[in-house]
Amino acid sequence: MPAINPDRLLGDLYALRRIGAYKTGVHRPTLSPDDLVSRQWLVERMKEAGLDAEIDGIANVLGKSRAGGRKILAGSHIESQNHAGWLDGALGVIYALEAARALRDDPSTRDLGVDVIAFCDEEGHFGSYLGSRSFIGDVTEAEIDRARDRTHGRMMRDALQQAGYAGRPRLTVEPGRYAGYFEAHIEQGRTLETAQLKIGVVTAIVGLWDYRLKVTGHQNHAGTTTMAERRDAGMTLIRLIAAIDQKFKQLTGPRSVWTCGRIEFDPGAPSVIPGEARALLQFRDPDRAILDRLEAALHAEVVAFNAAGPCSIAVETIRQSKPAVMDEKFQQAIEASAAIHAPGKATRMPSGAGHDAQHVARAMPAAMLFVPSIDGISHHWAENTSDEDIVLGARVFTDAIASVLKG
Amino acid sequence: MPAINPDRLLGDLYALRRIGAYKTGVHRPTLSPDDLVSRQWLVERMKEAGLDAEIDGIANVLGKSRAGGRKILAGSHIESQNHAGWLDGALGVIYALEAARALRDDPSTRDLGVDVIAFCDEEGHFGSYLGSRSFIGDVTEAEIDRARDRTHGRMMRDALQQAGYAGRPRLTVEPGRYAGYFEAHIEQGRTLETAQLKIGVVTAIVGLWDYRLKVTGHQNHAGTTTMAERRDAGMTLIRLIAAIDQKFKQLTGPRSVWTCGRIEFDPGAPSVIPGEARALLQFRDPDRAILDRLEAALHAEVVAFNAAGPCSIAVETIRQSKPAVMDEKFQQAIEASAAIHAPGKATRMPSGAGHDAQHVARAMPAAMLFVPSIDGISHHWAENTSDEDIVLGARVFTDAIASVLKG
Repeated sequence: MPAINPDRLLGDLYALRRIGAYKTGVHRPTLSPDDLVSRQWLVERMKEAGLDAEIDGIANVLGKSRAGGRKILAGSHIESQNHAGWLDGALGVIYALEAARALRDDPSTRDLGVDVIAFCDEEGHFGSYLGSRSFIGDVTEAEIDRARDRTHGRMMRDALQQAGYAGRPRLTVEPGRYAGYFEAHIEQGRTLETAQLKIGVVTAIVGLWDYRLKVTGHQNHAGTTTMAERRDAGMTLIRLIAAIDQKFKQLTGPRSVWTCGRIEFDPGAPSVIPGEARALLQFRDPDRAILDRLEAALHAEVVAFNAAGPCSIAVETIRQSKPAVMDEKFQQAIEASAAIHAPGKATRMPSGAGHDAQHVARAMPAAMLFVPSIDGISHHWAENTSDEDIVLGARVFTDAIASVLKG
Repeated sequence: MPAINPDRLLGDLYALRRIGAYKTGVHRPTLSPDDLVSRQWLVERMKEAGLDAEIDGIANVLGKSRAGGRKILAGSHIESQNHAGWLDGALGVIYALEAARALRDDPSTRDLGVDVIAFCDEEGHFGSYLGSRSFIGDVTEAEIDRARDRTHGRMMRDALQQAGYAGRPRLTVEPGRYAGYFEAHIEQGRTLETAQLKIGVVTAIVGLWDYRLKVTGHQNHAGTTTMAERRDAGMTLIRLIAAIDQKFKQLTGPRSVWTCGRIEFDPGAPSVIPGEARALLQFRDPDRAILDRLEAALHAEVVAFNAAGPCSIAVETIRQSKPAVMDEKFQQAIEASAAIHAPGKATRMPSGAGHDAQHVARAMPAAMLFVPSIDGISHHWAENTSDEDIVLGARVFTDAIASVLKG
């Protein structure tokens, strides 16, 4: 059985943490100077591991194994959210690198191939999963032309040019090369920690459906306009979201989540009846049928409110990603590996957050493994996982890949 | 019976409209250059009307009658909201001026006295009803020291200095001088227009109670935090306001109004569970008992929500003005006058908006008369009332004052 090297694994994670360090986390937004340094650093580590490494035209970093036969593609991303955690993405890339090294170092797995990949911009500074979607052939040149950094407004084309990646081909899935994709990630929630578990075997990555609600009423004086006369966009929106929230409670599954992350009244003064009110509403579920049910309930409430009046409500769909089901055999491989290294400490669970695996799963069988997040903290520099849990996760990850490759 | 002069009345209103004209309305915020011009203009009109006119240390403009016996104080304000209507306030001041002139011009009323007043800052650029509250002795020097223009931040002391009013005494109610106070105003709503009525006899000015609600939850990832784990400040606030809205529907009177004019979620991102949520909630009623009932219901809901968890809610009281009941005999005088000039076209009604009369009513009997607002538009440059309705209102107003003074 291949043995990972804990010091090498943690050493690489620590080294990566020093590039763009911010408090106990990192600040490495996509194509920032520190992000470019980290990509080049990764190329060097891949080469040391005997992989043929390159950075492609959209800044994906791919290290290809020279082994024969079907290979496992493994990885995640290395850029970070702004001022965020050191393991979000980086953990999955370094796990993949360590798996490739561990398999190479062990005589029983020396001929098995692991390609390591760091997909660009999973964190969405320039777009939506541009790196993994590019790798499966789902990103046009026009989409890259339009892409713009959400924080600074820099065009992605300019950023790629300044990085020296412009004009390079974009790598895509080589037909017949892969048996599947493995990605490890911090959980970003407290499910594992609360249950004192160590390994999450991801069953599906949830579909994420986002909507913009806009209520149009009539702005007026909050003292002289009677309740019967008023067309209060603000109170209508509050009643609508409260009604949707109530309805969702009856229709949702065990892992459904829904969130109103933003609400605004116009003009927003204490003594003025809002003439317009806007909100963002989002729900996620691993089950497509539940997503459909929630959307139908949302639209039914809006129709009922519009029929009742006196305000008019418009719903705009912002995104509707499909739930991505993880490969059943891969899930069993992770469970079998966990049964050896962490008996009784693994559970099947959906991923509430989006990951590159949801896109790669459209091109090949895919799997994800979660390790615990301390206090469930995510997208914050305080995000962390204990070294012990990091090492344990890498063992489970590596053996699962080895067992799949051995067939 | 004294006869008003429609051309003189409308001519003065038109002249005042030209000072700080903005589209079809005016822009004369308190102590702005155009506001100062309008105050001086008013002093000249008062002097022409035989009144002893002066501008006091807080920019109240008072024109005192030289007649003997008890007088009626009549007026309103002449500054405007920013870019607002030409009649809001101005109508009441020019009605009072015209009443003084009409009584002076008629032999049967020549000896009856009407003092005309334009209270400073009813529109609240620097504070809360500073002029009328100063006139009844309810404003300290310290309050003026602190007062600051809400739009530009200029200190009121500096504004009074620049106007040349600093150091002047502030006029207050002269004991024994007044039989009471009359104020005319545009309705600012559609009650009169909808019922095809011409005169509103105000029964009471509503109490206005304003609250700030703040919900504290826990900011977290909207995908990975289960519904059971989350402490969603945003959804809690929506549920709370929806519950209060439902409860209020059962507890309120015919003229109760309630409004949530502003709501904010922090941080306000689509995929982040709000860690804090804030809203402004306001209700108004002419009946103190109903105001008490609504406040009790608000606090009861907050207590219930806090007990249920998982977020904590704080309520801060911003203001609680008392309803001001208008004098019954004055109401009858307005009704009797309306019965002559506009038979069947008057109705008793509360004022949903605040007015200087609510403060003056603490020092003497007070009355208010409303004329229709076209489309109920208020606090907007498009606010308007037909010339015909303006003239009719002035007739009813003047005769009502004359009949009160005649005893």
